Amino acid sequence: MAAPIDEFELIARHFAPLAGNTPGALGLRDDAGLIRVPDGMDLVVSADTVVAGIHFPDDMAAGDIARRALRVNLSDIAAKGAAPVAYTLALQLPSGIDDAWLAAFAGALAVDQQAYGPGLLGGDTTGTSGPLAINISIFGYVTENKMIKRSGAVAGDDVYVTGSVGDAALGLAVIQGRMSLPDAGDRDALAGRFLRPEPRVFTGARLVGLASAAADVSDGLLADLGHVCTASGVGAEIRLDDVPLSDSARAAVTDDQPLRLSLLAGGDDYEIVLTAPQSARSAIADAARDTGVAITRIGRTVARDTQDRPVVVLDEAGNRLDAGDGGFRHFRAEVPRPE
Amino acid sequence: MAAPIDEFELIARHFAPLAGNTPGALGLRDDAGLIRVPDGMDLVVSADTVVAGIHFPDDMAAGDIARRALRVNLSDIAAKGAAPVAYTLALQLPSGIDDAWLAAFAGALAVDQQAYGPGLLGGDTTGTSGPLAINISIFGYVTENKMIKRSGAVAGDDVYVTGSVGDAALGLAVIQGRMSLPDAGDRDALAGRFLRPEPRVFTGARLVGLASAAADVSDGLLADLGHVCTASGVGAEIRLDDVPLSDSARAAVTDDQPLRLSLLAGGDDYEIVLTAPQSARSAIADAARDTGVAITRIGRTVARDTQDRPVVVLDEAGNRLDAGDGGFRHFRAEVPRPE
Repeated sequence: MAAPIDEFELIARHFAPLAGNTPGALGLRDDAGLIRVPDGMDLVVSADTVVAGIHFPDDMAAGDIARRALRVNLSDIAAKGAAPVAYTLALQLPSGIDDAWLAAFAGALAVDQQAYGPGLLGGDTTGTSGPLAINISIFGYVTENKMIKRSGAVAGDDVYVTGSVGDAALGLAVIQGRMSLPDAGDRDALAGRFLRPEPRVFTGARLVGLASAAADVSDGLLADLGHVCTASGVGAEIRLDDVPLSDSARAAVTDDQPLRLSLLAGGDDYEIVLTAPQSARSAIADAARDTGVAITRIGRTVARDTQDRPVVVLDEAGNRLDAGDGGFRHFRAEVPRPE
Repeated sequence: MAAPIDEFELIARHFAPLAGNTPGALGLRDDAGLIRVPDGMDLVVSADTVVAGIHFPDDMAAGDIARRALRVNLSDIAAKGAAPVAYTLALQLPSGIDDAWLAAFAGALAVDQQAYGPGLLGGDTTGTSGPLAINISIFGYVTENKMIKRSGAVAGDDVYVTGSVGDAALGLAVIQGRMSLPDAGDRDALAGRFLRPEPRVFTGARLVGLASAAADVSDGLLADLGHVCTASGVGAEIRLDDVPLSDSARAAVTDDQPLRLSLLAGGDDYEIVLTAPQSARSAIADAARDTGVAITRIGRTVARDTQDRPVVVLDEAGNRLDAGDGGFRHFRAEVPRPE
């Protein structure tokens, strides 16, 4: 269908413009790129691959794929409090990818670079006999020794989550036709949360010095808070009724408590789950107000009981609910494959 | 065939040990890794993906695949003069990959980490319905403003290449049964050069402050020297008889000049092609002696003739030889697919 595209021409036409303002990208015409880290800063690095048919539906639009690939990486460093500075892009392109697709893909990246700050530093393009795959490594600055780790929570900290939880899992169900909702606005809102995650870059940067620990919510709230608990050696109790839902998610969930509970295991929200000492409450409220993103207190950390699950979910009466293990894992047999 | 492997277990068992000595890897238990760049240093970054059936034969052993994936990346930053410090690893694993395969893969990386210096900083593992693919991003330190770029050559510089040229292309031909050689030692030596490239990490580091420009030889000597010429705005003349061949390559080429010429277009040698002022000759000889890697002068750069090819190949009488465009490109239709 499409004529073969020369790799060098492809890079010059579609990707070199994305590197034009990146110091150290050298116009994508060298073997490597260069990052100068300012004195007093550390460089935070994360890498994530998204594969068609596993992490996103095969028929997703080029721009949505590009945004998703970049934003899931932005989310990783946002949860660490880092300000995005650059990224590398490695593409595995099946045959059938044409120039218009690449133009739409690169165009979406250009918009997100403006919105979130990182510039293209380098990359790699290859063909593949398999599905489209996109690997991005992202780089951000954070003040020396101030990266927000998973391991810093102590018993008695508050637990918070940004934004709202479960929208992306509901959105994927809508996209796949597994869930019907009467209101088109709700359907679009939820699908949009899956297709176009909003990494909490600016909110994350405000959490430096406030949060004791944090992770981004990619595997599901229970799983990712569980990672924080495990790394920190604490447990956590969260109250189901306090977990923030969007209006569209409320419309989908109605009063179905099991469904509501299942949202705690829904991935792909790309919110930040964090812990912080009680002394940080007013500063966290300020960060939420200043960045326009809700930061909702949903529970607290407790002394670890190694016989128990790391995260316990309570109903309004304080009774434990069975939320299962929580979290889904992007790995082979366990992977939910959109058809 | 293989039982599904849990991603977290897989990381803990096979990859966390590779991160044990990497400052900032945080045991691979966080969303991101951390790099602290010493004052007065720049960070050099490169990313490369290798895909089964495109960059290496499908039936290659796990350890050889691991080595190749890491070493092609080491080669990129070696050519820039950078000392490897860390790398991230993103794996796309088809079904059928089992624990023994992963153990061999990780074991080979452990050996190369010892040999070349970088530690595992982070990564990502996902399934795929396509071929095995490995993306590595590599990070190295170089003195501030001293990275050896492609763009620094001036007319009148010497042109050098490290090691020997064409072995990997011949080795691939041997592996694929396209070339027969009487001597088993020659066959093994050439195949080994394809399977286990030796990135010129220590030699590259010695070229900082000596080389005016450099690139690694991945696409072929003509193509990669051509990239240097284009970036620098110069041309180059090289003498075919001066291009260093290994003894095994000499045995394969005999007196077949067209075959010898074709080696200039053979990729995957992972040597360094560099330019340097004549004043650097004795220091370059010292670097070769100290690191035990030949650095052979093969020609010189000349004023650019934009009507001409960037790189001209001369015979011993100084007559131009037709070496074609040179270089192969790892991209779709042009890709030679090992069967």
